[in-house]
Amino acid sequence: MALKFEIRTQTKDAYGVPRARTGTLTLPGKHGQNHQIHTPQFMPVGTVGSVKGVTTSEVRNAGAEIILGNTYHLYLRPGHERIERLGGLHQFMNWDGPILTDSGGFQVFSLSELNKIDDDGVTFKSHIDGSTHRFTPEVSMEIQRALESDIVMAFDECPPYPAEPERVEAAMKRTFEWAKRGLEVPLKPHQNRFGIIQGGLSEELRMKSAAELSTLPFDGFAIGGLSIGETPELMQSMCKTTAPFLPIDKPKYLMGVGRPEDLIECVRGGVDLFDCVMPTRNARNGQVFTSTGKLNIRNAEFADDERPLDENCDCDTCRNYSRAYLRHLFAAGEILALRLNTIHNLQFYLDLMHQIREAIDQNRFDDWAENFYTNYHARKD
Amino acid sequence: MALKFEIRTQTKDAYGVPRARTGTLTLPGKHGQNHQIHTPQFMPVGTVGSVKGVTTSEVRNAGAEIILGNTYHLYLRPGHERIERLGGLHQFMNWDGPILTDSGGFQVFSLSELNKIDDDGVTFKSHIDGSTHRFTPEVSMEIQRALESDIVMAFDECPPYPAEPERVEAAMKRTFEWAKRGLEVPLKPHQNRFGIIQGGLSEELRMKSAAELSTLPFDGFAIGGLSIGETPELMQSMCKTTAPFLPIDKPKYLMGVGRPEDLIECVRGGVDLFDCVMPTRNARNGQVFTSTGKLNIRNAEFADDERPLDENCDCDTCRNYSRAYLRHLFAAGEILALRLNTIHNLQFYLDLMHQIREAIDQNRFDDWAENFYTNYHARKD
Repeated sequence: MALKFEIRTQTKDAYGVPRARTGTLTLPGKHGQNHQIHTPQFMPVGTVGSVKGVTTSEVRNAGAEIILGNTYHLYLRPGHERIERLGGLHQFMNWDGPILTDSGGFQVFSLSELNKIDDDGVTFKSHIDGSTHRFTPEVSMEIQRALESDIVMAFDECPPYPAEPERVEAAMKRTFEWAKRGLEVPLKPHQNRFGIIQGGLSEELRMKSAAELSTLPFDGFAIGGLSIGETPELMQSMCKTTAPFLPIDKPKYLMGVGRPEDLIECVRGGVDLFDCVMPTRNARNGQVFTSTGKLNIRNAEFADDERPLDENCDCDTCRNYSRAYLRHLFAAGEILALRLNTIHNLQFYLDLMHQIREAIDQNRFDDWAENFYTNYHARKD
Repeated sequence: MALKFEIRTQTKDAYGVPRARTGTLTLPGKHGQNHQIHTPQFMPVGTVGSVKGVTTSEVRNAGAEIILGNTYHLYLRPGHERIERLGGLHQFMNWDGPILTDSGGFQVFSLSELNKIDDDGVTFKSHIDGSTHRFTPEVSMEIQRALESDIVMAFDECPPYPAEPERVEAAMKRTFEWAKRGLEVPLKPHQNRFGIIQGGLSEELRMKSAAELSTLPFDGFAIGGLSIGETPELMQSMCKTTAPFLPIDKPKYLMGVGRPEDLIECVRGGVDLFDCVMPTRNARNGQVFTSTGKLNIRNAEFADDERPLDENCDCDTCRNYSRAYLRHLFAAGEILALRLNTIHNLQFYLDLMHQIREAIDQNRFDDWAENFYTNYHARKD
């Protein structure tokens, strides 16, 4: 069993470079379900076995076709072996769709107190209790095998931003060596593997990383190490430079990105898959995305506002609650506020991807994007 | 328009005293919906315009027929006038069933920094920002009128426990005077009024309060001032003493009570309506009610437990999630844990009332209760 990726519409830019496209990614599924994912697609993040604040049925209702789980978090708590004993991550968290797990690399470098990185792997301390652990490419594969995710990410080294060119190059080379080692570890029959490109903000290294990694038998390729502090413009430019150097017939995944405008610009660059905590995290901070721009529901201006968050949205929150009520819940510290905002933001992101796919298929992506930006920048706050 | 209360089954004890009963309470509703409430019934508490952690559709799915809103909280935030402008509390919080609002009395005495109580009313400081406010019987009626609740509670004085007999008697007398004053304030056509009995833990004062209050034209009567620190046995005994002295043809409501065993014993005493934060608050602390007793989902013993919280429960939580998952969510601090526990506890309480009604109607309440206790005390933790 292996994933199948069928491209429906493939646009090219003025130079003939392959750009925005739509397609269907079919993942076999643990029970042979043949999960279909319509690309470009956005994956809500379920860090510790829950998309924060909502149930999986709400995630599904918002339009999600695939979610992401975090290997680092699930390894530490409740433990991958426990999850395997309990029937795998899908059953544990009651999600019948496909799951992509990251490799744990990014979290080890960003969340934990790092002890030591060497060519073999990384020793780190848990951000929860300070206990010492070690990840290698092989360990990351074993954890993801136990989690039973449908897409398994290669274990990579993500250098910080900014970093010395030598550091970035070394991380890129190590990521390549680790990718090869990970491929040697057997997975479960339904699982698929994506490799990860590194190379920091050097176009040269990015292209080299893409070229090298493309020689390995991955089922898809990801652009890692972006959106870690650089400007959105730099991120978008680096993504657009890298994407065409990845195999055209395989899905392309931009990790950890981003704002609605980042999704649009990176789809334009040729990306098929995205994930980001932004819709869920910002919801919990009261920031809500709407077709006329972002708004912060804490603001007093909404105290008597009877309108829904977004008059163009038909999510449960917009159909049932006013801004005034949501503002009140947030001000009163009611946890329902976090959930209602999250439901809306998820639907906004997933609707956005739906609109993008439709626009590409109808050969009007540029017009659609221009129109989206005009409306999205209409709000002043 | 006025409420209608039809008693279906009325049991009597060995001395011929009216005890446990079933009935149907019909409230006209703002839009003439004729809300039916099957008694004995439990009302989930929606303190600040939300039953904490869940949506109103989840409250409905758990079996709730009526919920409670807190006048004190809603007056302070977001303000009763704002709620009235926004269409009333039902519309504001998206609940199409009936609502009972308390009078604010209990919260003024228990939550706020009390400044001064006199025969006319109470001056107090907000627990939110320390601002000064004044409630009188008239103000309480005006707030509840703006909230548009279906059942409006008389403004009462709830003395602390323990208190001097003179203090308790004075509060009882003042409560009676305030009840009369409240009756003078006009409400909206769909609204109904309940009076409140006080009298602390004195059987004599309780009986006197019941006798006096029964002379006033209330649509129902509540027993207030219990479950404020006395033992459950004393509370139950006081309730059983008082209930028979309330008009037999009107609904009897025991305020702020309580544990499952308290509901059972006070139904036995003749009570028709209950409210309590216990199912929702305890859920947020990880304490879950099951047919075999309480359990604390934080406990390590549940880390690998694949069973639902309660094998006899068909709530969404029990149908979809294992104890192991719920334990993990709670340990990881995921807000979804609070919601899933709350859904279960609400359903447990509302199922309990359903079982009670069935048992009374089938003339097997005592046997049912004995059987319930045997199972409920089976768990050891």
